[in-house]
Amino acid sequence: MKSRSFGIAGSAVAHPRRSVSSREVDERLGMPHGHVEATFGIRRRQWADPQETSSAMAAAAAAQALAEADWSADTLDVIVGACGVMEQPIPGTAPLVQRRLGLGGSGIRAYDVNATCLSFLVALEHVLDGFALGRWQRALVFTADIASAALDFRDHEASVIFGDGASAFALAADGAHRCRALRIETYADGADLCRLEAGGTRLRPHEDIDGFLAASRFRMNGPGVFRAAGRRLPRFLQTLLGEARTAPHELATIVPHQASAPALEHLKRMLPDGHARTIDIFAEHGNQIATSLPHALHVARTRGRLRTGEQALMVGTSAGISLGGAVFQW
Amino acid sequence: MKSRSFGIAGSAVAHPRRSVSSREVDERLGMPHGHVEATFGIRRRQWADPQETSSAMAAAAAAQALAEADWSADTLDVIVGACGVMEQPIPGTAPLVQRRLGLGGSGIRAYDVNATCLSFLVALEHVLDGFALGRWQRALVFTADIASAALDFRDHEASVIFGDGASAFALAADGAHRCRALRIETYADGADLCRLEAGGTRLRPHEDIDGFLAASRFRMNGPGVFRAAGRRLPRFLQTLLGEARTAPHELATIVPHQASAPALEHLKRMLPDGHARTIDIFAEHGNQIATSLPHALHVARTRGRLRTGEQALMVGTSAGISLGGAVFQW
Repeated sequence: MKSRSFGIAGSAVAHPRRSVSSREVDERLGMPHGHVEATFGIRRRQWADPQETSSAMAAAAAAQALAEADWSADTLDVIVGACGVMEQPIPGTAPLVQRRLGLGGSGIRAYDVNATCLSFLVALEHVLDGFALGRWQRALVFTADIASAALDFRDHEASVIFGDGASAFALAADGAHRCRALRIETYADGADLCRLEAGGTRLRPHEDIDGFLAASRFRMNGPGVFRAAGRRLPRFLQTLLGEARTAPHELATIVPHQASAPALEHLKRMLPDGHARTIDIFAEHGNQIATSLPHALHVARTRGRLRTGEQALMVGTSAGISLGGAVFQW
Repeated sequence: MKSRSFGIAGSAVAHPRRSVSSREVDERLGMPHGHVEATFGIRRRQWADPQETSSAMAAAAAAQALAEADWSADTLDVIVGACGVMEQPIPGTAPLVQRRLGLGGSGIRAYDVNATCLSFLVALEHVLDGFALGRWQRALVFTADIASAALDFRDHEASVIFGDGASAFALAADGAHRCRALRIETYADGADLCRLEAGGTRLRPHEDIDGFLAASRFRMNGPGVFRAAGRRLPRFLQTLLGEARTAPHELATIVPHQASAPALEHLKRMLPDGHARTIDIFAEHGNQIATSLPHALHVARTRGRLRTGEQALMVGTSAGISLGGAVFQW
């Protein structure tokens, strides 16, 4: 498949007002000061209050991205939501963001995609396809997740590392960037390793409220995910770089999903000069589910790390279990 | 944009075992026999028992579609879930179906899209893009919804017309069918007309269980939806048919979302010879959310209504509010 071209006209992130230090989390857990930071490599994260919704955060990020692009919102051709978990089941989060942007009467198509932490890559694939086929010129992709709504603090590893946040990218068909390859692999034999079971068609709160509540906290087998994803990552990267006709040393910047401190360390060690090349915002924001990957891309962009002619790798894992990545030339 | 070609190698639907007559529903509501059928134009629908999950129904339909195609499941390049509401928030329904198909170690990419009742069209767009760009050769698109898990029988219109079901399509890049146009318009000023608010990041069951339970039933302003969608439908269809370079009398078969008996009647009256040309399975299955549109397409296909060289229109509305449609040449 040929590479697809595009431009990033604007990007932004938005977070809840409340920043929670790991010292505060230590107290909540009844652990000695310094425990959470020393154990999990995270200093702070942002947690939403109930009135700070996914669509509100996403709309705030989108407004900033559109302002940078200098696009009137009504010139968008498509709005794609890429949240790990939607704000509510019906309707999707993309229509809710469309309305918050004042586009409720616009007719601009708005819908969602979902691959948990890799949702941004799926949205990007869909938008780049539309650019390549001439279907649209301007797209808004957003992510938003509020992990803090479903954490179980009895399981430290599956709770303290998560943060809330949103991102938005204003993407243009007309641009000098190229996506040389984009790849997703799913291994659902690991589907139970990360799960949030309550909130869909299977568990019915009116019929079994206790079972529903018990299943309404996020469950993660961290070592299991690390093994399932880690053992497949070398071959995955080899295939992706082969499709992109590039090599590890050509990748000037690595933009990873911010899964955990050990996962980031593992990735940095796999790639040449990995520690210097990798965007690592985990200590300040934690794992923001679907927002981590685009947030890291936004940081790479604003820090001048996406230089013309150079290549960058986006890569991550998600519940599913899926591995995903893309190689861009800027 | 040029038309995109594809083939339908197999298709199937699957339903819960339990068929519920409108006479049975009359009794449940305490209404005289014949009331529900006379009022809503529905004779029966299928409602799932708790062990009949979305992924189980979808996998059953998928196995049939793959058998008709004579494809080994491991030859698929992509699995796209297009449910109105997912089985559970994490991971998505597509990985769960991948695992049920014995593909848990395959690496075949599996993720979901969501536009409530129009999800199938979004999935189709994504798959056809991949065909057009040479990214893949074989795709599985499935839908599954269990509306009965979230009905409020105090509101007859928003409950008795819904049924549960799943569909699956085995789609090939190599085929003689063409998608001449596909269009989606979203008007989120109607986002509150159809909603299911509990089950995402906004409402937190552990903090307010009563509020959560109150919001965990589907709410629909039927007349509002009918007005919001109906008044926009003529212009929507005109634009879609213009993009497809066709005219209403060229459409041999109309494949609509099965929203309600009045919505189907309204559509039939809008199009020439509409009553004869329209696939109407509402009385036997009700509104199956995202499954209605592909189920109607499957019925059109198995009844020999998709004849070579002829054109067909898929069209529907969804929560959002969105309008969606596509024109195919077989």
